[in-house]
Amino acid sequence: MDYQRIFEEINEEIKNDAPCGEVASYIPELGRVDPNKFGVHLTTVNGEHYSFGDSDEKFSIQSIAKVLSLAMAYNMEGEALWERVGVEPSGTPFNSLVQLEYDMGIPRNPFINAGALVIADILVSHLANPKEELIRFVREVSGNNEIDYCTRIAESEKSMGYRNAALINLMKSFGNIKNDIDVVMDFYFNLCSIEMTCKELSRTFLFLATYGICPETKQTILSVSKAKRINAIMQLCGFYDEAGEFSFKVGLPGKSGVGGGIVAIYPNKYSIAVWSPRLNKKGNSSKGIKFLELLTTKTQASIF
Amino acid sequence: MDYQRIFEEINEEIKNDAPCGEVASYIPELGRVDPNKFGVHLTTVNGEHYSFGDSDEKFSIQSIAKVLSLAMAYNMEGEALWERVGVEPSGTPFNSLVQLEYDMGIPRNPFINAGALVIADILVSHLANPKEELIRFVREVSGNNEIDYCTRIAESEKSMGYRNAALINLMKSFGNIKNDIDVVMDFYFNLCSIEMTCKELSRTFLFLATYGICPETKQTILSVSKAKRINAIMQLCGFYDEAGEFSFKVGLPGKSGVGGGIVAIYPNKYSIAVWSPRLNKKGNSSKGIKFLELLTTKTQASIF
Amino acid sequence: MDYQRIFEEINEEIKNDAPCGEVASYIPELGRVDPNKFGVHLTTVNGEHYSFGDSDEKFSIQSIAKVLSLAMAYNMEGEALWERVGVEPSGTPFNSLVQLEYDMGIPRNPFINAGALVIADILVSHLANPKEELIRFVREVSGNNEIDYCTRIAESEKSMGYRNAALINLMKSFGNIKNDIDVVMDFYFNLCSIEMTCKELSRTFLFLATYGICPETKQTILSVSKAKRINAIMQLCGFYDEAGEFSFKVGLPGKSGVGGGIVAIYPNKYSIAVWSPRLNKKGNSSKGIKFLELLTTKTQASIF
Amino acid sequence: MDYQRIFEEINEEIKNDAPCGEVASYIPELGRVDPNKFGVHLTTVNGEHYSFGDSDEKFSIQSIAKVLSLAMAYNMEGEALWERVGVEPSGTPFNSLVQLEYDMGIPRNPFINAGALVIADILVSHLANPKEELIRFVREVSGNNEIDYCTRIAESEKSMGYRNAALINLMKSFGNIKNDIDVVMDFYFNLCSIEMTCKELSRTFLFLATYGICPETKQTILSVSKAKRINAIMQLCGFYDEAGEFSFKVGLPGKSGVGGGIVAIYPNKYSIAVWSPRLNKKGNSSKGIKFLELLTTKTQASIF
Repeated sequence: MDYQRIFEEINEEIKNDAPCGEVASYIPELGRVDPNKFGVHLTTVNGEHYSFGDSDEKFSIQSIAKVLSLAMAYNMEGEALWERVGVEPSGTPFNSLVQLEYDMGIPRNPFINAGALVIADILVSHLANPKEELIRFVREVSGNNEIDYCTRIAESEKSMGYRNAALINLMKSFGNIKNDIDVVMDFYFNLCSIEMTCKELSRTFLFLATYGICPETKQTILSVSKAKRINAIMQLCGFYDEAGEFSFKVGLPGKSGVGGGIVAIYPNKYSIAVWSPRLNKKGNSSKGIKFLELLTTKTQASIF
Repeated sequence: MDYQRIFEEINEEIKNDAPCGEVASYIPELGRVDPNKFGVHLTTVNGEHYSFGDSDEKFSIQSIAKVLSLAMAYNMEGEALWERVGVEPSGTPFNSLVQLEYDMGIPRNPFINAGALVIADILVSHLANPKEELIRFVREVSGNNEIDYCTRIAESEKSMGYRNAALINLMKSFGNIKNDIDVVMDFYFNLCSIEMTCKELSRTFLFLATYGICPETKQTILSVSKAKRINAIMQLCGFYDEAGEFSFKVGLPGKSGVGGGIVAIYPNKYSIAVWSPRLNKKGNSSKGIKFLELLTTKTQASIF
Repeated sequence: MDYQRIFEEINEEIKNDAPCGEVASYIPELGRVDPNKFGVHLTTVNGEHYSFGDSDEKFSIQSIAKVLSLAMAYNMEGEALWERVGVEPSGTPFNSLVQLEYDMGIPRNPFINAGALVIADILVSHLANPKEELIRFVREVSGNNEIDYCTRIAESEKSMGYRNAALINLMKSFGNIKNDIDVVMDFYFNLCSIEMTCKELSRTFLFLATYGICPETKQTILSVSKAKRINAIMQLCGFYDEAGEFSFKVGLPGKSGVGGGIVAIYPNKYSIAVWSPRLNKKGNSSKGIKFLELLTTKTQASIF
Repeated sequence: MDYQRIFEEINEEIKNDAPCGEVASYIPELGRVDPNKFGVHLTTVNGEHYSFGDSDEKFSIQSIAKVLSLAMAYNMEGEALWERVGVEPSGTPFNSLVQLEYDMGIPRNPFINAGALVIADILVSHLANPKEELIRFVREVSGNNEIDYCTRIAESEKSMGYRNAALINLMKSFGNIKNDIDVVMDFYFNLCSIEMTCKELSRTFLFLATYGICPETKQTILSVSKAKRINAIMQLCGFYDEAGEFSFKVGLPGKSGVGGGIVAIYPNKYSIAVWSPRLNKKGNSSKGIKFLELLTTKTQASIF
């Protein structure tokens, strides 16, 4: 399919839309990003590449990285993982404590902050040098040795992380955090600080469109079943309390980050990354969602 | 694919499992059903049929009918429909008032009871003879003029419908019910009383696997986009607060009913109905889910 | 104490305050009341009377009547009453369904709408002619045979009572309503439609300042213990989610109504009624609360 | 009144009751207390003393100390205090995060843990050496220079304080904690570790029965209005979600602690402390409440 032409077409349609939403500003590092950046990169399972706009510029992938830590932890723990975190949509904002209190410290899914903290705790239990080993895993998956944390972002998040500290302390009080809180938090904030370009992000996530197989090395990153299950969780929980809207309009499993990035997977077809820093009220990239909606509408191709 | 053989294989694996869960008993008519009934019917988009067990026995499809009333209302209202009901998973049980109160009378999605009542209200506004016209629509979609309401079930539900009366009165207090409450309730209880066999149910829902086209008459029941969107809503909201689990394990959009029925759609491949009256704690058929999980695992085929 | 002089003094202090809040307008009959009405009447346990302003004008006492129906039901049921309704502050608005759902149909206290509906249900179970016998009880307590329902108000409430219908249906679904819903609702709406002047209201409630003894006939309306307990419930629950604020500022047990009336009890001293129809955001009379706050501050006399 | 005889009488009535509830055991230091300890001490405003049982044995007063820190902070901040903490009953358990999240970091009242942490934060802002100055204030109020913290208890609480850490981090994220979290937590845990005998506790709280005046030195500890308001808050919020029950049965303002202590105030009459370590499900001393209920019933004397 001629995605390049479709990208141009979509761009024509939306380029004059009034800008919608604000850049995340809870930490200065995110607030300084040019709100008008816009990049797209699609990688097919056959290795074709289609780009648009600022697709080669690095941005903070933020919560999108939670899919990668989940993949790593899922491999290590297997299905036992789900005793400590659920797979249900939360029905509440991404950082809510309400649900966590009713559910006795078991987060609804691994993509809300509480769930990602539990995943981080699991990795800290398994890994001798969590930060080093996680980034090594990400580099392997992405086929790119340059991928790295952004220490500045990580530090900045840490200094403002009271809400996450509330979540992790609450879970610790219920016995669902096994390691030292500061160690887990430090690891978590580093995880969320990873930077990629749209091209790198799209390439990194291709393994979820290829049923767990690394497209280049043909190495198995995840079993077919695990890869499909991660896609299912993204479908149900990847966009906080806007997951239904995204499924409804775009029809692909995906994950967003407050840096304005979105990655979406069309199994057996492609992985696509879009980036536009203005966020809607639910904390997801406005223009990113619009772009993907038009893409699956024009191509008449979604998983449904 | 030789679904017949796979059905036999799955049956061998699970036939000696301890029975799990109880038959719905909030009304005597449902409580009287033989808990050990078990039927399966799969219809492919090419018109092939595969059956197993009690697939030709009628049962109460209950909430599964909410997909049909949604299809009818969506056609009539178009996207304006979503001003009165959301598309997000509820995160709470199917008949919860909590969410409805916080969201000022707008139900989270059309499959929780409150949402289905709003859809019923919309149909009552549009139709001169709602009951007659709905069943006519269902018969058309199913290619079967015998499909009908079960008056006994409808009456029985009505006599126990205090929780639903609470929901509809609460929504009326917020202005989200336009018609007389008794009229809407009567229509709603009839809707939930429709009876089908697995074969009929599977055949009826085939239009969602064929992008809205009636497989026999080739007539358009829903536009491609609308059909896909209904699948997306089923994926996110079809199993109350077990939607994530079903997506995770089965990987198909589907809808369950407290009569023990489940219908699931594999777009462009098949529609399948299973029936086993014992329900798990979340109100979904235990054996039905297990069967579908094994089916998509063995065939290595799901939308993810 | 020279309450008359104190009333004048307080009036001087507040008469030029900007009017604050709006008249209840959910039914037209309440919305038509002159918002600037202001009346006060204090009756001491020794039979002294002190009035101010529009103290001889009838108004709808609304929820204040819930104290009277509680007194009647408490006498009939004794402590068994508390198996069907609690005595705890609700922490949520007066008509919330959230609490009721979590607590399985047991209302937190008899003054939130749900609780008053349970009390109405209990009276319907005990009384052959609930409406006649309740008003007879109220006339007896008040020593005034003219006290009556306002049919116009009762009818108007009934036509808008969807929220109350939601509450009572929800409780019926939990088994905490024993009688026909329409009968209980009709009785409840009549109860809330009773009209009194400040003078009548103050006189009617005097029995709660005299430990259950009718001040004129010396007849026992309630036992000492029951009278004190009703005062305690008023203290904790008489002002919805503003009970703490009222206790804190005024320091007397009391009960408000959306008609703008407030009655407050100083045990062994006096009963006072104030009326000013403008309500604050919590649904209580703004000026009424202000007046009572200044009264207990100036007299340095509260139960604390 | 011959309280001594009444104490004996009550003891006769309840001494053979089956022991009810368990000693708090979330920290070992509390779990080691003999569950059958039982002490009472009543101090009248005229300086009379009445004791029963283990009234001279020290125990951990725990949350009862929150009334003393509130008194100190209220004096310093005046009514501005109420911008940072409410005066309403919480309607939820003492350490709930739910309410705090809905109310944007403003605790419902100063006696739930979140509210007491805000009060601790306020004192940390005002005091150069918070721990020293608080204990000095407590000694002054109690007329007893021996009153002290129990370091062992404070350390033990700190090591298990994840839930409180969750609360304070959540409030910090909303901007309602101004100081360093560790400093405030350390101060808070010390506050809760204060030890007193029933006699000391009863004597310490006498100032709330004497309208803020120290009964010995005649010095003003709090203004009349502030003393009455603290009593009002105790009445509404002193027993977590059992405040209504306590008001209803006992009819006095009071405050409980998980060490099994309860203090209750009869304004202008007496202050009473009871101690029995077995707690009911709501976290309040079972036998303590029973004793106080019988006391106010037998003396026919409560504030209502």
